[in-house]
Amino acid sequence: MSTYKEIALVKRPDDGKIGPHLFETREKTIPSAKDGEIVIKQTHMSLDPAMLGWMSDDRESYIPPVELGDVMRSSGVGEVVESKNGDFAVGDKVMGMTGWSEYVVSNGRGFNKLRAGISEEMALCVFALPGLTATTGLYNFGKPKQGETLIVTGAAGSVGSIVGQLAKADGLRVIGVVGSDDKAEWIVNELGFDGAINYKTDDLKEKLKSLTPDRIDVFFENTGGPIQHHIVNRMNEHGRIVVCGMIADYQAEKPSPGPNWIPLIKKRITIQGFAMPDHWNEIPQLLEKLTPYVQQGKIKYRAHIIEGLDHACEGLNMLFEGKNTGKMILKL
Amino acid sequence: MSTYKEIALVKRPDDGKIGPHLFETREKTIPSAKDGEIVIKQTHMSLDPAMLGWMSDDRESYIPPVELGDVMRSSGVGEVVESKNGDFAVGDKVMGMTGWSEYVVSNGRGFNKLRAGISEEMALCVFALPGLTATTGLYNFGKPKQGETLIVTGAAGSVGSIVGQLAKADGLRVIGVVGSDDKAEWIVNELGFDGAINYKTDDLKEKLKSLTPDRIDVFFENTGGPIQHHIVNRMNEHGRIVVCGMIADYQAEKPSPGPNWIPLIKKRITIQGFAMPDHWNEIPQLLEKLTPYVQQGKIKYRAHIIEGLDHACEGLNMLFEGKNTGKMILKL
Repeated sequence: MSTYKEIALVKRPDDGKIGPHLFETREKTIPSAKDGEIVIKQTHMSLDPAMLGWMSDDRESYIPPVELGDVMRSSGVGEVVESKNGDFAVGDKVMGMTGWSEYVVSNGRGFNKLRAGISEEMALCVFALPGLTATTGLYNFGKPKQGETLIVTGAAGSVGSIVGQLAKADGLRVIGVVGSDDKAEWIVNELGFDGAINYKTDDLKEKLKSLTPDRIDVFFENTGGPIQHHIVNRMNEHGRIVVCGMIADYQAEKPSPGPNWIPLIKKRITIQGFAMPDHWNEIPQLLEKLTPYVQQGKIKYRAHIIEGLDHACEGLNMLFEGKNTGKMILKL
Repeated sequence: MSTYKEIALVKRPDDGKIGPHLFETREKTIPSAKDGEIVIKQTHMSLDPAMLGWMSDDRESYIPPVELGDVMRSSGVGEVVESKNGDFAVGDKVMGMTGWSEYVVSNGRGFNKLRAGISEEMALCVFALPGLTATTGLYNFGKPKQGETLIVTGAAGSVGSIVGQLAKADGLRVIGVVGSDDKAEWIVNELGFDGAINYKTDDLKEKLKSLTPDRIDVFFENTGGPIQHHIVNRMNEHGRIVVCGMIADYQAEKPSPGPNWIPLIKKRITIQGFAMPDHWNEIPQLLEKLTPYVQQGKIKYRAHIIEGLDHACEGLNMLFEGKNTGKMILKL
């Protein structure tokens, strides 16, 4: 009988710090499928900033936290290695909420087979949370119009890079905010953004002004941080702000203050916070919207691969330190 | 030949302070009407917080500033004392953009006759900017639903008092934030609000918690100030925040920071800034919505009357100091 590893959450990150002390690795016996079940061997696991929220005891958030003692929540792709469910065959590649575990037993609900030609990396980088989140936020709330200017923070990140490419494909001027020159180079030269701001080294106000001669119509916020204030002051009338993430503040003991609301009145601005779980039922329409862009080669992605379940915690911290270059994926 | 007084803006309030040094009083000859014109003797002039914005050289705001040398902008009610316009007769009471002036000559465009039974005070308190602004903000953006909880700042003010009464009539729980015990007493005992918070003396967090057992669904913001942060933290999922005014910050050299945006994501909150000039064309529908509430006696109002054009500047300052009890009206 062989065994596999799973990692459970055993302590909450009350000080916002993520480390091995929060987790317990358990050795388990690889199970067999009962009637109607499948056994999945996870091959690619997604690491996402939202995980910090899922670990925290915040009953007011958009989904309940992971209970202490439970396997840590995550999405991932795996291969079906045993099936007693007519909808799945051994060898199928499936995507769903796998958790931090090498093996998963499931009745199949919530797992979808990857379509032919879609690699595991593309599935997790584009067709999973990042692409769905980008598509929902941009089209439901950003309401981009050809010729407008969009700015996206975390622009080299998994969501931001897709937001920017969708907006470019729709004929907007697109500026990205990033935290390194490598990322700036990537979004401009590889993804075709019209400009990049390195929030760590650029003069934010000046650079923003020079890159947005027609000011800003859509602000897609993934990070927070001081540039938020400058962007709000640079918005056009009837501008739309989509608040998707605030990674710069998730770990802060006291989150930094936001912009004063006077510009919201002067410019009649809309700010909309959103979270993907409200939109699960829209997934078919979202995929219908997103897929043609991918098929036309308009959505490039970059995966940052690390290997081995033992490095999950470390990989997660890389996200918060901005050390990843692309979507963080843990290969198992 | 008799004369009248008008007050022109001659200097901008660059430090946010309003005083006599910004204005020049001019003595003019009472004009005669030319063909198509009417001469209006203003009897009741409205004083509004928005005036500070109109005085400032902010070309980015929702309407252009008053030009230096021009008569200061305001709305008001007056009596037609001469008419060479078939639509108006001597003795008609009319409402429109009068300006800080005892007499106004107009071709009649933008002036509307008061309907029978509508006093000058009621016209300015309910059917002019305050009522239209309250109705637009509450119904277009606040989207109140029976059984929900609404909180309104500046609750004894001209807009806030109407917002709260409309919401009460619609079956919401309504809490008002005010700056004195007299105002608290008025909104609860006279207007029927479910509770009041005195932002100067109450423990904001505790009082807010005890008065909103089901948290807050709609936040109608007229003032800004520290309670803003507490209210945002007390919002329900899918809450709506309507930003109408930020009077606490208009005069600040450096506006105070706003709330961090993390709760906007967790609760998927919408914030909408608005200004009435975007909605002039909706006025017929707005009046259709507002009038039945007034006819049913559900909208009470309180005018704070001061007398004489010379006291306009002083009256305006009372608004910013929160010394008014009700809608500020200058009787001429």
